[in-house]
Amino acid sequence: MMKHFDKAALSDMDAVARIKLINSISGYKSANLVGTSDSLKQNNLAIVSSVVHIGSDPALLGFFVKAFGERHTLSNILETQVFTINHINKDITFQAHYTSAEFPKSVSEFEQCKLTPQFIEQFDAPFVAESRVKIGLTLADKIDIKLSGTTLIIGYVTHVLLENENYFDSTSGIDLNSAGTICISGLDSYHDVQKFASYEFAQVESVPNF
Amino acid sequence: MMKHFDKAALSDMDAVARIKLINSISGYKSANLVGTSDSLKQNNLAIVSSVVHIGSDPALLGFFVKAFGERHTLSNILETQVFTINHINKDITFQAHYTSAEFPKSVSEFEQCKLTPQFIEQFDAPFVAESRVKIGLTLADKIDIKLSGTTLIIGYVTHVLLENENYFDSTSGIDLNSAGTICISGLDSYHDVQKFASYEFAQVESVPNF
Repeated sequence: MMKHFDKAALSDMDAVARIKLINSISGYKSANLVGTSDSLKQNNLAIVSSVVHIGSDPALLGFFVKAFGERHTLSNILETQVFTINHINKDITFQAHYTSAEFPKSVSEFEQCKLTPQFIEQFDAPFVAESRVKIGLTLADKIDIKLSGTTLIIGYVTHVLLENENYFDSTSGIDLNSAGTICISGLDSYHDVQKFASYEFAQVESVPNF
Repeated sequence: MMKHFDKAALSDMDAVARIKLINSISGYKSANLVGTSDSLKQNNLAIVSSVVHIGSDPALLGFFVKAFGERHTLSNILETQVFTINHINKDITFQAHYTSAEFPKSVSEFEQCKLTPQFIEQFDAPFVAESRVKIGLTLADKIDIKLSGTTLIIGYVTHVLLENENYFDSTSGIDLNSAGTICISGLDSYHDVQKFASYEFAQVESVPNF
């Protein structure tokens, strides 16, 4: 049986049901941990499902944060100008999930969730040692989205750390399957991923006769 | 062997290799077809891997488009104020991929890629009949991102069409696995997805003793 929610049905819907529907309806989402610290070296870690590609030259990634309430990730980035994005793999998914609990600022999610902060020289944000694909970024822009009370944080990619050099191939990019990167749906579901196809760059003259 | 690309290595990198790296490094991406038409009812369809959740109340989704060159999707949305987002499933992935070829505006990707435009009453953008989860949206905002020459298009969700009512459960949202929705990595790779876990809403008092 088909189902059609129109504008009236969506607005009449129970609020929790609508949150579940709209959070799951964009499709699968990237699964990352964002690492920051404040100027006193207090580390913070947050699971984020909204990391997006912004540009390749310069190399830019972004993610969305709520702009209201106590936002440790946002305030730390504004304070230190740097942050990390760390891919979640199956071995750390359960711990990564619990970084979303609202710990007070004095508590580090790294300690509470048994994940290990890792630092490199001349870069002040913590990476996640247990992650296999880690990205260091410098704040590039901050765009407020008034409609939703959220902020799009954009960073320049300044470091890429791969646990194994074989994850990357210059003709095909990072092999997320071999890095064991997982993905998210909705607010609380985690998924394994398996490639079934790669296709050539699509050009008008090579379009098959479907 | 570990691999570390620092800022200098990233900027010295071959341009195509950097595009492949940065397009794959955000993690898995949602796989959707965006349907639009112009005021003369010429239909357009474009594969998009950047659809993101913006907000649930009001219900908002967004996606990024390049702001330069001939952008049929962008100009159609500005002209008609409406668009659709249609999940890609395995049965239509190969066709969906080829909507990215740069067809002239007079050519419909629906026809070229053998996908079927589907309309509902009082809504002027085409859905994809072969998709199982379809969303109708009304333009809400357009945010230019100067750093990357891209535009974030945001729409109010005004219609949700599910091929099977069982895809949705009010306590868990849409079951993307049962709808057969796929995901994307990089520019050209398509993946099957299989849930391995759902966890409870994380609260400080329920965090396990890891």
